[in-house]
Amino acid sequence: MENKHPASDNTKLTRREALKLAGVGGLGLILGATGVKSLLPSASSSEKAAAAPVLADGIIPFYGKHQAGIITPMQDFICMGAFDLTTASLDDVRKLFQSWTAAAARLTAGKTADEESGSPHLPPADTGESAGLNPMRLTITFGLGASFFDERFGLSGKRPAALVDLPRFNSDEIRKEWSGGDVVVQVCANDPQVAFHALRNLARIARGKAVLHWVQEGFQRTGAADPSGSTPRNLMGFKDGTNNPKVSDPAVADEVVWVQPSDEPAWMTGGSYMVMRRIRMRIEVWDRSALDDQENTFGRHRDSGAPLGKTNEFDDLELDRKDANGNPVIPVNSHVALAHMEGKVKILRRGYSYSSGLDARTGQLDAGLLFICFNRDPRKQFIPMQQKLASVDLLNEYITHVGSGLYACLPGASEGGYIGDTLF
Amino acid sequence: MENKHPASDNTKLTRREALKLAGVGGLGLILGATGVKSLLPSASSSEKAAAAPVLADGIIPFYGKHQAGIITPMQDFICMGAFDLTTASLDDVRKLFQSWTAAAARLTAGKTADEESGSPHLPPADTGESAGLNPMRLTITFGLGASFFDERFGLSGKRPAALVDLPRFNSDEIRKEWSGGDVVVQVCANDPQVAFHALRNLARIARGKAVLHWVQEGFQRTGAADPSGSTPRNLMGFKDGTNNPKVSDPAVADEVVWVQPSDEPAWMTGGSYMVMRRIRMRIEVWDRSALDDQENTFGRHRDSGAPLGKTNEFDDLELDRKDANGNPVIPVNSHVALAHMEGKVKILRRGYSYSSGLDARTGQLDAGLLFICFNRDPRKQFIPMQQKLASVDLLNEYITHVGSGLYACLPGASEGGYIGDTLF
Ligand code: HEM
Ligand code: HEM
Repeated sequence: MENKHPASDNTKLTRREALKLAGVGGLGLILGATGVKSLLPSASSSEKAAAAPVLADGIIPFYGKHQAGIITPMQDFICMGAFDLTTASLDDVRKLFQSWTAAAARLTAGKTADEESGSPHLPPADTGESAGLNPMRLTITFGLGASFFDERFGLSGKRPAALVDLPRFNSDEIRKEWSGGDVVVQVCANDPQVAFHALRNLARIARGKAVLHWVQEGFQRTGAADPSGSTPRNLMGFKDGTNNPKVSDPAVADEVVWVQPSDEPAWMTGGSYMVMRRIRMRIEVWDRSALDDQENTFGRHRDSGAPLGKTNEFDDLELDRKDANGNPVIPVNSHVALAHMEGKVKILRRGYSYSSGLDARTGQLDAGLLFICFNRDPRKQFIPMQQKLASVDLLNEYITHVGSGLYACLPGASEGGYIGDTLF
Repeated sequence: MENKHPASDNTKLTRREALKLAGVGGLGLILGATGVKSLLPSASSSEKAAAAPVLADGIIPFYGKHQAGIITPMQDFICMGAFDLTTASLDDVRKLFQSWTAAAARLTAGKTADEESGSPHLPPADTGESAGLNPMRLTITFGLGASFFDERFGLSGKRPAALVDLPRFNSDEIRKEWSGGDVVVQVCANDPQVAFHALRNLARIARGKAVLHWVQEGFQRTGAADPSGSTPRNLMGFKDGTNNPKVSDPAVADEVVWVQPSDEPAWMTGGSYMVMRRIRMRIEVWDRSALDDQENTFGRHRDSGAPLGKTNEFDDLELDRKDANGNPVIPVNSHVALAHMEGKVKILRRGYSYSSGLDARTGQLDAGLLFICFNRDPRKQFIPMQQKLASVDLLNEYITHVGSGLYACLPGASEGGYIGDTLF
């Protein structure tokens, strides 16, 4: 997440006032029921949409050059699922993506998944649990896993070279039930019920063509809990997202996130590669470690989020600073020192906390980070970064990667088209 | 949940204005960052507190005659855990409840679990993930399971007669990992991170004395998604909570919820019995059933929430109405017809939806209702009701009870005292 200017409790406006203000100033402010936020408008939406204000409980346009949910400012909740195709016909796949596109466009606009038939003797077209709820900035983002490009649909020749099989990283304990899948659907919204509803209805629409392979829910603090919109904290208590690239700058987004026309294959131009890692935290071990160990692990102060030895969250890292004894102020094996990659390799992180009850086997909390990132080419970005982290990151003492996926997120669709129409 | 008057989008006020208004009018309005709600103030709080307005992101007082979180208007999220005591000393148990009380009073007031030591060489007193967040109407409610009264602490003679072992109900498929526990802690808040944070810190404080036995998270739609505050819908798409007793009336609360001085034992006076049932929904089967089957199952219309044949949610049930053929308009085996118990037996429901990813064994969504209810005597209220429902309710085709617990929720504590001081 990007730096956001805090707004005082007295800057709260009515929706009507907010719309008026945005109309007059054209500031691109995002205003919502939970207060004023200076989040940048989703650059993934069409130009028309980007000029309009987006409310925290409002609509993020579905159609556009890029899919929404990638450089869109983060929502508070995620409900994400991977599907395995049960059909062997490319025509069925095409139809599925057409139906999914139509439903996603409706759902993100705050509508039901489909028009009701009106007949009480038929199953309702929509499952109903989001009736009367605001659109809540719902986004739905589709991606294809490597298995999608096996022999079933005659598309194996089209598999992008960047859609590699992720290597096994040091100390990985990846479990199949939280990994892979032919198709991934990332659903994000400022409300958990709205997000669940969308994924569930997409699963329903897929009946006979695809089944769910895994489902993961995630959260962060809600806008109402932090109206100032400061960087959310992860379950280790640290601000997470501070040094994300500023993708509100289109040049940065093109550099870090979007597949460019010069990249291969052409059907991925305007798309992006998503990495998902379910990373379990050893909460109980972490909670027994001293504050200075915790801060050295990340290389940042817990309270302020500032780099070690500095005072403000957004101060420069300056990894070459030394203390009185000539030792680096930020340990070389700390998470940020390593992940910084000398400023040469960047990814866009968009992760959520997860908490999934108790691990019945160990009696420990099953909680951690649903790590999600987007990058233009994982071979040059995520993979070298994770290879470095997996081998020496001080954080490894407290985490285990238990789920994994890499997906080619298709470019956006324009009205009349559908997600996947550049490929199928 | 009770009927709430809708508020338009233009009634949004600044916090300062809201406090001023409430101060002048003394209307007991609950106003918050997410808009104006006419929720009733928590009658479980002390008189002083009940007179003050409670913001959706504000504080519910912890101390009072009754524990908060019982007749308190529902929050949007729950994070609930059951603990097993690992100590065999009653003195340890007493100390644990004293520490828990102190921490719960701090946490619900929006503070850290404890003061920080200030030493970076020690583990932080608080795990940090709620730093800077609003109190979010956090409530923490403690209860004792039947196993608490075994031989370990010399308290077996004090086990309330109402704290029975729940019978096995028809078609129960109860699993140990979601059931029982010596102590239950119900944490509710308008933010999932605030709720998680509280339970986690209470678990941390229990180290060496108690371990978690199960943890369950739940949600409903957030206030921002439905600023009008209408009755939330469950994952079957139906409004859930319509015909809950109006416990804002102290006479109703005394009748339905609170253990009275005339009841046994004296240390439970002002307390209540909580039933927890993890009820899995067969989502995929439900989603294939016709609208009229769904409506006949509940005995209410899906869209409006009205009793079958009526138009408004809060219209009277009138179970004796007949259609042209002389058949009851509301099927006798529908959920509401049965649960109504001829108006003679009532419980206070306070449940949440849960969604816990995919059931790896079946490939189906593991989602449903975290049913929670409070009653004065489960032998006279929950048990006969559930016996009736379990045998003939049309809803049984679509649900399975997989977790279960009955807990004696202690009376509230006054400042200087602690939860459990009437017993230990
Ligand atoms: C549970 C696992 C993880 C946790 C708790 C975590 C947490 C953090 C925190 C607290 C920061 C500092 C604040 C910020 O700039 O956001 C950070 C930075 C960062 N993390 Fe992670 N992270 C985790 C896993 C990963 C993984 C798997 C990757 C990529 C392979 C990654 C990449 C980064 C990057 C690129 C930065 C910014 C570094 C810079 O300052 O340039 N993190 N992370
Ligand atoms: C997944 C399981 C369940 C679902 C989906 C469910 C759903 C509903 C719905 C939609 C209503 C109608 C609206 C309302 O008045 O709230 C209702 C009413 C009610 N339910 Fe349930 N319920 C479930 C389980 C239970 C259980 C286990 C009990 C108690 C043993 C119970 C007791 C009641 C009562 C007392 C009413 C009000 C009846 C009246 O109108 O007087 N429910 N429920």
